[in-house]
Amino acid sequence: MKAVEWADGTLRILDQTRLPHQEVVIEARTAREVAAAIGRMSVRGAPLLGIAAAYGMVLSASGDSRAGWEGRMDALERAGAELIASRPTAVNVAWAVGRTLDAARSAADRCPAALPAAVLHEAQRIEREDEVSCLAIARLGADLLPGSGNVLTHCNTGALATAGCGTALGMIVAAHEAGKHLHVWVDETRPVLQGARLTAWELQRAEVPMTLVADSAAGSLMARGLVDAVAVGADRIAANGDTANKVGTYVLAVLAGHHGIPFYVAAPLSTVDVTTATGADIVIEERDPAEVLAPGGTPFAPAGTRVANPAFDVTPASMITAIVTDRGVATPPLGAALRTLLGAPAPRQAVSP
Amino acid sequence: MKAVEWADGTLRILDQTRLPHQEVVIEARTAREVAAAIGRMSVRGAPLLGIAAAYGMVLSASGDSRAGWEGRMDALERAGAELIASRPTAVNVAWAVGRTLDAARSAADRCPAALPAAVLHEAQRIEREDEVSCLAIARLGADLLPGSGNVLTHCNTGALATAGCGTALGMIVAAHEAGKHLHVWVDETRPVLQGARLTAWELQRAEVPMTLVADSAAGSLMARGLVDAVAVGADRIAANGDTANKVGTYVLAVLAGHHGIPFYVAAPLSTVDVTTATGADIVIEERDPAEVLAPGGTPFAPAGTRVANPAFDVTPASMITAIVTDRGVATPPLGAALRTLLGAPAPRQAVSP
Repeated sequence: MKAVEWADGTLRILDQTRLPHQEVVIEARTAREVAAAIGRMSVRGAPLLGIAAAYGMVLSASGDSRAGWEGRMDALERAGAELIASRPTAVNVAWAVGRTLDAARSAADRCPAALPAAVLHEAQRIEREDEVSCLAIARLGADLLPGSGNVLTHCNTGALATAGCGTALGMIVAAHEAGKHLHVWVDETRPVLQGARLTAWELQRAEVPMTLVADSAAGSLMARGLVDAVAVGADRIAANGDTANKVGTYVLAVLAGHHGIPFYVAAPLSTVDVTTATGADIVIEERDPAEVLAPGGTPFAPAGTRVANPAFDVTPASMITAIVTDRGVATPPLGAALRTLLGAPAPRQAVSP
Repeated sequence: MKAVEWADGTLRILDQTRLPHQEVVIEARTAREVAAAIGRMSVRGAPLLGIAAAYGMVLSASGDSRAGWEGRMDALERAGAELIASRPTAVNVAWAVGRTLDAARSAADRCPAALPAAVLHEAQRIEREDEVSCLAIARLGADLLPGSGNVLTHCNTGALATAGCGTALGMIVAAHEAGKHLHVWVDETRPVLQGARLTAWELQRAEVPMTLVADSAAGSLMARGLVDAVAVGADRIAANGDTANKVGTYVLAVLAGHHGIPFYVAAPLSTVDVTTATGADIVIEERDPAEVLAPGGTPFAPAGTRVANPAFDVTPASMITAIVTDRGVATPPLGAALRTLLGAPAPRQAVSP
């Protein structure tokens, strides 16, 4: 099944906290239920968060029976704020909320009855665009990977993180399908173990050779010449190319730089937040200490241990070999390259499904 | 209680796999039982491994009732080989086995009856020396740490890893006791979580301010200026100063170098293996995939996932600010400094308990 699926007034969410051992579907019927699912990471992955948030806005627009335009727009804006607060770092949520609000505002003649259809139309557009974006990223990114060798990836950036085939994992799988002989090192990605739980599951289904490692083994693998490229996703890219992604991404960038290994970020261009000048302006979400203290519910540390659990870190643009977007590959200087891509008209196959 | 304790024909081993939630003591009565406890990491920590192995040799020497000298020495050598094979990377096991074998060989007049006492005497010497070594390392290392700030450490290098107050953790606790205002970032240290389980427990008992983090958060902490020094232990130091330690240590060294943060290794001089020229000659132990697949027994990855689980990595000498030993602080060039320390007479307080 798909990671999220709109089904006639309900957003069906595959609960990723239960994967790979159980396939449980959450049926969200309000924006608040979608925000809660985002907050506990039942749905996650930057592009997918945008899509889930957009459908959360649809649920808000559909579920409000007040007659007045202003009242319904106020309620929609509050729902949007609640969705954005559920994961503050990923720009995709704010971006999707903004797009659905714009669509609502443009609804015919400020007619309350037209709101649900206008918001639904925009959410479905966002979802379709992401599918197409994934294909473009996969194709462009696959070309960058070597004909044979080892690619290291972090967290999950595949079909479970998008409406399509994924971003960084999409490019790896596409390269495999194009006949490249790749083996993937999968970082387990503490604390939430998206690598062990989700990426391992996806790669095994795609029959791509892979080996799971503890995050801290990456240095040793690189020192032994066993990593030819690193590919990761992005939760927010600042205007200058600084990239926020799952905690540990910056560690891989420093290691890759030290070993002269190419370091690729893959994300739709919508991940670029032009209102964020540099990585220093990105808010880093601090998550529940329990994620660190008790993996799988088993507490390891002594009771009462103080924990810091930053969910993301920021990789400076200067450490990124290229950002693979759906509209082209940005190479250094990344800020200028991203500006060019953002200003350029979209190629037909990327945004016109 | 102590991490290991010799009690009249039995080696009492505090089972560190059960900490911090349970204090269970294993009573080992044969060298094979000690080797098994080492293999499953019920007893761990480079210096403590040497002590446990030495008492394993005592159990072998005491338990053998054969009359002939040659037969008993053969049995003792086989026990030593089994102990060394139980953890191939830590040099301390081989070093302690070598010392007890030498003591056995020197036993009065090749008299079989003198063997147990000779081996026991040597094991007790090794244990006492380690206590004194720890004090010397703690004192020398504490001076290197800043008067206030944040120290990051990895794995466990405290009282649970030695017969005394520890190595890297010993120097941190000593600096705290000397009035320095330190806060410790404790890497959880996947896959076996010695940081979360053991270092957090020790620091809380010592009332040193600390915060537990996932290993991959170290980069983000350093980038934000929140780490003033890194202090780690060592399982084997090659003649040129290259240092094998818990996997992830090399990652911290690369990160520390990138951020201009001092990177300290603390270990008794016996950790230097002069027969190992460089880190390239160090065998890295590959451990059970289950450690990665199922922290706390809960499987996360899909069944059948392939795992690589190198227990150690090697940090090149060039990335180490100083090696704090019981006989002095070695600074670059480390190979020459270690040679000097090894050749110099031991200071009174360090080796004459």
